[in-house]
Amino acid sequence: MKSDTFHMSLLFDYYGELLTEKQRELFDLYYNEDLSLAEIAEHAGISRQGVRDAIVRSESILRETEDRLGLVKKYGSYESKLEEIRQSAAYIAQVNASLRNFEIAKNVDRILKLTEEMN
Amino acid sequence: MKSDTFHMSLLFDYYGELLTEKQRELFDLYYNEDLSLAEIAEHAGISRQGVRDAIVRSESILRETEDRLGLVKKYGSYESKLEEIRQSAAYIAQVNASLRNFEIAKNVDRILKLTEEMN
Repeated sequence: MKSDTFHMSLLFDYYGELLTEKQRELFDLYYNEDLSLAEIAEHAGISRQGVRDAIVRSESILRETEDRLGLVKKYGSYESKLEEIRQSAAYIAQVNASLRNFEIAKNVDRILKLTEEMN
Repeated sequence: MKSDTFHMSLLFDYYGELLTEKQRELFDLYYNEDLSLAEIAEHAGISRQGVRDAIVRSESILRETEDRLGLVKKYGSYESKLEEIRQSAAYIAQVNASLRNFEIAKNVDRILKLTEEMN
């Protein structure tokens, strides 16, 4: 039954706090800790079917929330893009170390500072 | 009773789709269209108190969602910061127009392209 783990973990990062503590715990063991349904059932002292139902329910809450809000779609790739901006700015700073252009140095610093604030 | 309009509109932008259609409509008239409770009551054909209750309830749903998820706190200032990055990069491009450094040009283009993708 396992859905795309990366996507599920991302949805969980954004919306996990909308789940109950118990739902979060089971979801986390399954998708982040990669335990099997049987292992989680033993750990939690409930049936394998109970674990499965809870996880399916959580998946559906997370998916419906994303269908409504779309914030993972909007912001999910921001971290990697911010990192690319940071790298490009650092490269410009490196090239400018020999050019010593003050305006470029100032604006590169500004970009680096902003990417840091956004992290 | 009106809460900080800017903050409320921002919460509504992020989480408004978690409200019912009716809640969204009343909230929008109050915070985005700036109608009074009495005007909304007349428009919607319900009592002024009914409008007030619905809006208070919506505010509380939006606030609680933000308390749990914190996505407005995390991403709310991204747009203005992205715009600052874009401006700094455009300025570097302008300075580099006379320097004609290929590596700087390439990396500035990369930054501008990324900020566009993130918009």
